[in-house]
Amino acid sequence: MKAGTIGLLTDFGQSDWYVGVMKGVLLGVNPLARIVDITHTVPPQDILGGSFALLASRNFLPRGTVFVVVVDPGVGTARSILCARSREKLYLAPDNGVLTEVLDRDGLEDLVRVENRAFFLDDVGSTFHGRDVFAAVAGHLSLGLEMDRLGPKTTELARCDIPRPRREDRSAWVTVRWIDVFGNMITDCSGDFLTELASAWKQLAIDVGGRTVTAIGRTYQSVEQGEPVALVGSSGYLEISIRGGNAAQAFGAKVGHQVRLRKA
Amino acid sequence: MKAGTIGLLTDFGQSDWYVGVMKGVLLGVNPLARIVDITHTVPPQDILGGSFALLASRNFLPRGTVFVVVVDPGVGTARSILCARSREKLYLAPDNGVLTEVLDRDGLEDLVRVENRAFFLDDVGSTFHGRDVFAAVAGHLSLGLEMDRLGPKTTELARCDIPRPRREDRSAWVTVRWIDVFGNMITDCSGDFLTELASAWKQLAIDVGGRTVTAIGRTYQSVEQGEPVALVGSSGYLEISIRGGNAAQAFGAKVGHQVRLRKA
Amino acid sequence: MKAGTIGLLTDFGQSDWYVGVMKGVLLGVNPLARIVDITHTVPPQDILGGSFALLASRNFLPRGTVFVVVVDPGVGTARSILCARSREKLYLAPDNGVLTEVLDRDGLEDLVRVENRAFFLDDVGSTFHGRDVFAAVAGHLSLGLEMDRLGPKTTELARCDIPRPRREDRSAWVTVRWIDVFGNMITDCSGDFLTELASAWKQLAIDVGGRTVTAIGRTYQSVEQGEPVALVGSSGYLEISIRGGNAAQAFGAKVGHQVRLRKA
Repeated sequence: MKAGTIGLLTDFGQSDWYVGVMKGVLLGVNPLARIVDITHTVPPQDILGGSFALLASRNFLPRGTVFVVVVDPGVGTARSILCARSREKLYLAPDNGVLTEVLDRDGLEDLVRVENRAFFLDDVGSTFHGRDVFAAVAGHLSLGLEMDRLGPKTTELARCDIPRPRREDRSAWVTVRWIDVFGNMITDCSGDFLTELASAWKQLAIDVGGRTVTAIGRTYQSVEQGEPVALVGSSGYLEISIRGGNAAQAFGAKVGHQVRLRKA
Repeated sequence: MKAGTIGLLTDFGQSDWYVGVMKGVLLGVNPLARIVDITHTVPPQDILGGSFALLASRNFLPRGTVFVVVVDPGVGTARSILCARSREKLYLAPDNGVLTEVLDRDGLEDLVRVENRAFFLDDVGSTFHGRDVFAAVAGHLSLGLEMDRLGPKTTELARCDIPRPRREDRSAWVTVRWIDVFGNMITDCSGDFLTELASAWKQLAIDVGGRTVTAIGRTYQSVEQGEPVALVGSSGYLEISIRGGNAAQAFGAKVGHQVRLRKA
Repeated sequence: MKAGTIGLLTDFGQSDWYVGVMKGVLLGVNPLARIVDITHTVPPQDILGGSFALLASRNFLPRGTVFVVVVDPGVGTARSILCARSREKLYLAPDNGVLTEVLDRDGLEDLVRVENRAFFLDDVGSTFHGRDVFAAVAGHLSLGLEMDRLGPKTTELARCDIPRPRREDRSAWVTVRWIDVFGNMITDCSGDFLTELASAWKQLAIDVGGRTVTAIGRTYQSVEQGEPVALVGSSGYLEISIRGGNAAQAFGAKVGHQVRLRKA
């Protein structure tokens, strides 16, 4: 029996039994599975949020991990469920674009539609495929099941309309993609993109929420207590923080907010 | 050493170390135990809430699972602790009625009072039996300990006054038992009961919070965005939802709310 | 391969992927590690809060546990990371005083500065040592790595200015250190200190938030519903509770609040 790692990423929260019964089903299939909760607090049905959380976390789970991504507003409709392979990791997700960003970045090596009911729970309902399909299938994959046993190969998958950093002559626009528990505003401006702008413009300023941040640091301690700082955070993206404070609250910023970078 | 599954269901929340130390004690007894958090956000000391969460989740954990149900307003008083067996599952719980619903449904095969201090922590305090008694005993059970080693057999157990669906001539009354993270209002109207009503009345209407829901669907997508829909949810009970919205907020409904089903 | 227990105690919350990627890194190093979430809701960057949560929980995780304590306002600065041994347990923590209380209580047997990058992730960033350093090192320790492989021995460690119970002639002052999910106000008055006061003064009264509590009980049920009670709680410290209610709300008390004990 193989003891694979399974990473769960959902919008189910942790106040109900939804994640618990997924784990119960998983362990029923593979009692040795090692289950990691990546996050369950993607905003309800927010495909973009799930996409970004997956992007930020995927590299830190071991080779062979089966990612179970259940942000699934279309559960019970005709939308497919996909299993994708990329860089020695497997991704199970509804075909709603939640994998777009990761697969664009990492490449897609193999893709099947998950249709073989032999690997589902016996009774599949219409409202909770996370339990009846995803968890059961992930259990089998973690045991070493070949993904082509799950259903037909395909090359089609839904794409999600993801905001992309946009560069103009003397400005660039990036988007707040996640606000973390500390109030750090994590944007989609990658470290590489920031380096490119910095080398073109020498000195950068960041306009956000009616204020301007000019401190670009390496750590949250690069500035005085209470001062804002921009840095490339642990996920590899530009984030705007306030040392010892809550930047999102101070700037009145929400996910989706546009942030402007410009030559200072 | 056996690697049993243990399902934890408590009202301890996840902001303190209470669940963590229960797991520490469990792993101290059985390092191979596989622990599943079912939920820890039963409303504080809400026996009815714990009962329903157990009812909704129990079928999805593997055979042999030891359920540890700690919703225990009487901790430290003379109330007993029980270990019950039903359908190849074990339930450890305070004798306060939290098992009533599950055992009424599944049948009770064996019942003992948990009294053998050999399987408790050495120092049992008076305020946290979840750690000092339940976790330690569950660890031993997951190792294969026979339940009759825990204490004397009994047939007595406290019953909890549980609301039951009530049918009149042209109306039936059911109760909101749980509101989930999406705002779905989960009632105690089972799928079977709903089928019975539907076949008697042909067309159903549901009165809740001063409004009437007539869409009875199969998935949350059976209606347009923002519209209410009633369906038999993943736990087998009628729930009232709003597609893409929060039904409980929209209907001003709380747990305990009465919902009327009637001939339309 | 050893299957050690690792206890995680952080201020990362559970809404982001931060704890999840720590677990991913841990399992990448030691796939058999048994990970216990002690708590992740230490108030952001609150060293005193982390210290108390560790104090309250440490005794209940098995011998050999590696505690990973990441409350780390100085991440990315020159502060060291320490590995301490005490009573057959290992503690990984930033050198900011978060270990002061536990080591004062339990004694310090061995201490090293964690500097050997061979046991870190390949790319160590400047903002998330919980993932890049702590998790990776904890994985190696749980495999049986000797702590002196991590870096040079030291005897120096930062101390944290921790409030201490203070006794005067007819009064003693203690501090609210934690408020739990039930609203119980947990103070730093140990059971031993309380016994000392009780034997000196015979009858105690407790002044808190403009009110006086005179019921000192053994369980939350020692008083009538809605009444306040003081008792030595499950962590061994005096806590002030309201039966069936929320004491912290009722008393308007926060962490840091002073509580006066006096001869009644």
